[in-house]
Amino acid sequence: MRKPKIVILGAGYGGLMTAAKLQKTVGVNEADIKLVNKNDYHYETTWLHEASAGTLHHDRVRYEIRDVIDRNKIEFIQGTVEEIKTEEKRVILENGELAYDYLVVGLGAEPETFGIKGLKEYAFSIVSVNSARQIREHIEYQFATYNMEAEKKDERLAIVVGGAGFTGIEFLGELTNRIPELCREYDVDFHKVKIICVEAAPMVLPGFDPELVNYAVSQLEKKGVEFRIGTAIKEATPEGIIVGKGEDEVEEIKAGTIVWAAGVRGSSVIEKSGFEAMRGRIKVQPDLRAPGHDDVFVVGDCALIINEEINRPFPPTAQIAMQQGEVCARNLAALTRGKNDLETFTPDIKGTVCSLGDDDAIGIAFGKKMVGGKASFMKKMIDNRALYMLGGPSLVLKKGKFNIF
Amino acid sequence: MRKPKIVILGAGYGGLMTAAKLQKTVGVNEADIKLVNKNDYHYETTWLHEASAGTLHHDRVRYEIRDVIDRNKIEFIQGTVEEIKTEEKRVILENGELAYDYLVVGLGAEPETFGIKGLKEYAFSIVSVNSARQIREHIEYQFATYNMEAEKKDERLAIVVGGAGFTGIEFLGELTNRIPELCREYDVDFHKVKIICVEAAPMVLPGFDPELVNYAVSQLEKKGVEFRIGTAIKEATPEGIIVGKGEDEVEEIKAGTIVWAAGVRGSSVIEKSGFEAMRGRIKVQPDLRAPGHDDVFVVGDCALIINEEINRPFPPTAQIAMQQGEVCARNLAALTRGKNDLETFTPDIKGTVCSLGDDDAIGIAFGKKMVGGKASFMKKMIDNRALYMLGGPSLVLKKGKFNIF
Repeated sequence: MRKPKIVILGAGYGGLMTAAKLQKTVGVNEADIKLVNKNDYHYETTWLHEASAGTLHHDRVRYEIRDVIDRNKIEFIQGTVEEIKTEEKRVILENGELAYDYLVVGLGAEPETFGIKGLKEYAFSIVSVNSARQIREHIEYQFATYNMEAEKKDERLAIVVGGAGFTGIEFLGELTNRIPELCREYDVDFHKVKIICVEAAPMVLPGFDPELVNYAVSQLEKKGVEFRIGTAIKEATPEGIIVGKGEDEVEEIKAGTIVWAAGVRGSSVIEKSGFEAMRGRIKVQPDLRAPGHDDVFVVGDCALIINEEINRPFPPTAQIAMQQGEVCARNLAALTRGKNDLETFTPDIKGTVCSLGDDDAIGIAFGKKMVGGKASFMKKMIDNRALYMLGGPSLVLKKGKFNIF
Repeated sequence: MRKPKIVILGAGYGGLMTAAKLQKTVGVNEADIKLVNKNDYHYETTWLHEASAGTLHHDRVRYEIRDVIDRNKIEFIQGTVEEIKTEEKRVILENGELAYDYLVVGLGAEPETFGIKGLKEYAFSIVSVNSARQIREHIEYQFATYNMEAEKKDERLAIVVGGAGFTGIEFLGELTNRIPELCREYDVDFHKVKIICVEAAPMVLPGFDPELVNYAVSQLEKKGVEFRIGTAIKEATPEGIIVGKGEDEVEEIKAGTIVWAAGVRGSSVIEKSGFEAMRGRIKVQPDLRAPGHDDVFVVGDCALIINEEINRPFPPTAQIAMQQGEVCARNLAALTRGKNDLETFTPDIKGTVCSLGDDDAIGIAFGKKMVGGKASFMKKMIDNRALYMLGGPSLVLKKGKFNIF
């Protein structure tokens, strides 16, 4: 009997968890498993804001895929996915193609710019190791250039963060910790630096407990962040951004750095491959398969799951992606063994913690609200847990966060 | 009796040495001494190529002026000199002015671009702490951006160094040591990086021993430097440089970074103040005074002294500037005490070492040629000696180079 070919696209939280669980449950003789990823490393998407601000080196937020997979059971292929041909059961890569019997799509997210002019050209997004270190270096270069100009341009030192959601707030927390270091490094007066957070929605961290949100805003304001809430970015330019002000008026905010952290969408490969999707996210069946495609599972940022309680999609998180990976692996194992009774996925939200820098955070865990050092400790434990689940204790020791006080 | 007012402009090697020696020989009741400098720190001009390449942190190449002057004897004024009004015996600063009885001009050098189009706009010069860290960050940003572009531009990783004189060669030595680190940091293939040294003159390091020059060129070539000797830069552009090729032809060399290290001239304040000068350098009298100005001494890069043996000016070096500072201080002390019999300055060239990175160098010292580790050791001793002469043993311990093998 021919072994089924399982192809996993993407080694993010969802794809890598699927691989990690599959290699434990499926024998070498049961399936032929391939894992495809653009880079030869996995990165912690939820830590990228730290690498972007320069508070954590980018090598701390990534690890080699070959360190966590069992190469006797899984073949790793470094490649960029261009398209999925579902009718032909083939995946087209930049340099080659792969046939599959079962496919796991875990291709992650891309920045969603909502068609705002100039964002693609002039704003940075916190989406990968490459983009994180470019943001870090861009900000450093602005600071390094400041004292070289005969007429000092204070706007060089201004940083606009578009979006007061999770990524925006976590990035602001790191950035405000980093600025004093940058001021010392480049002999810049701290008071010349401006950090402006622009958010189109009428609130910071929508969906979060209002008391915790107030704490976060007040902590960030104390560290110098200026919030412009209910303010939409109309355009990004080489000089900064144009925002709406009142009915018809606009205002220019000059800034040397613009970081767009106001939204992501699923991979563009989804639509290119003909899946029905909303902003690149496929509304999956309870067993995580794409509707009409019994051989395609979708996990992570490309999967859309509705929270029935509020009739809105769950925000895509690492927590959910990893839980999906586990269910996906079990369902794949079942199919491999000829069982068609698949498990239903139900997210189990254990808690949510939003960091405000290395030393502060807000969150709810085990049903309890927490702020400050306690929440920050919890955040680090969550980060270490993700390492543990994907790579076991040795990965925690290698990449874990132990700067706990 | 009124105390004479001595004003020293510039805290480079010449000015700071004048101050350091004056405070040892002249009593508080003998003279009123002021030292003016743009920054509150002195920097090692001869170490800037290291900070520019990123092999030595810029804080290692500077120290606070107040750490080396005796503030009971010398008043430090942070200010930028705009003009010297010799008739009125006054110095105009950006924010104020100072009267003097005796003046020491040690205002240092500026890049000389020989009117080459685009160099001021698109090339960096190794001239200050500010410019050094901007060069370092510019190169890092080019590397950080490389992997972010869908279509990779190898020219981003190309670095053109204009000039194969002392600064150019020493910078190349550091740069070639730094590139492998940058490649690791930004996941860049080492073979994609190009370092091109363009020199209009027909030789590398003119005036240096040919055997040593051959060693230097071959060592740098081994580390990836491509030499384009006898090649003149016609223009610098945002994309790179245009060089002459043969009679009428030109060639474009695309590069993300252009560093101009092919020449300096004396401060532009010299000409602005009406001194007779050649490229901002005043041909001083044997006692270091400017011709026709018995109250103005000139030291360092603004002073021109002829080497009678070859009937050409001595190249301005830290060694000569410090020796001038010593003589200048003794002559000022003499004038203060009413003596008009001033000392004649004669350079005493003890040796010259050109570094080729942290671990290699070429040089002549005590009449002996040396290369490799031995020459590199000598270079570090010369660097430590400059610290010792300006700030004593404590400064050597704080900023000295002890990475000796």
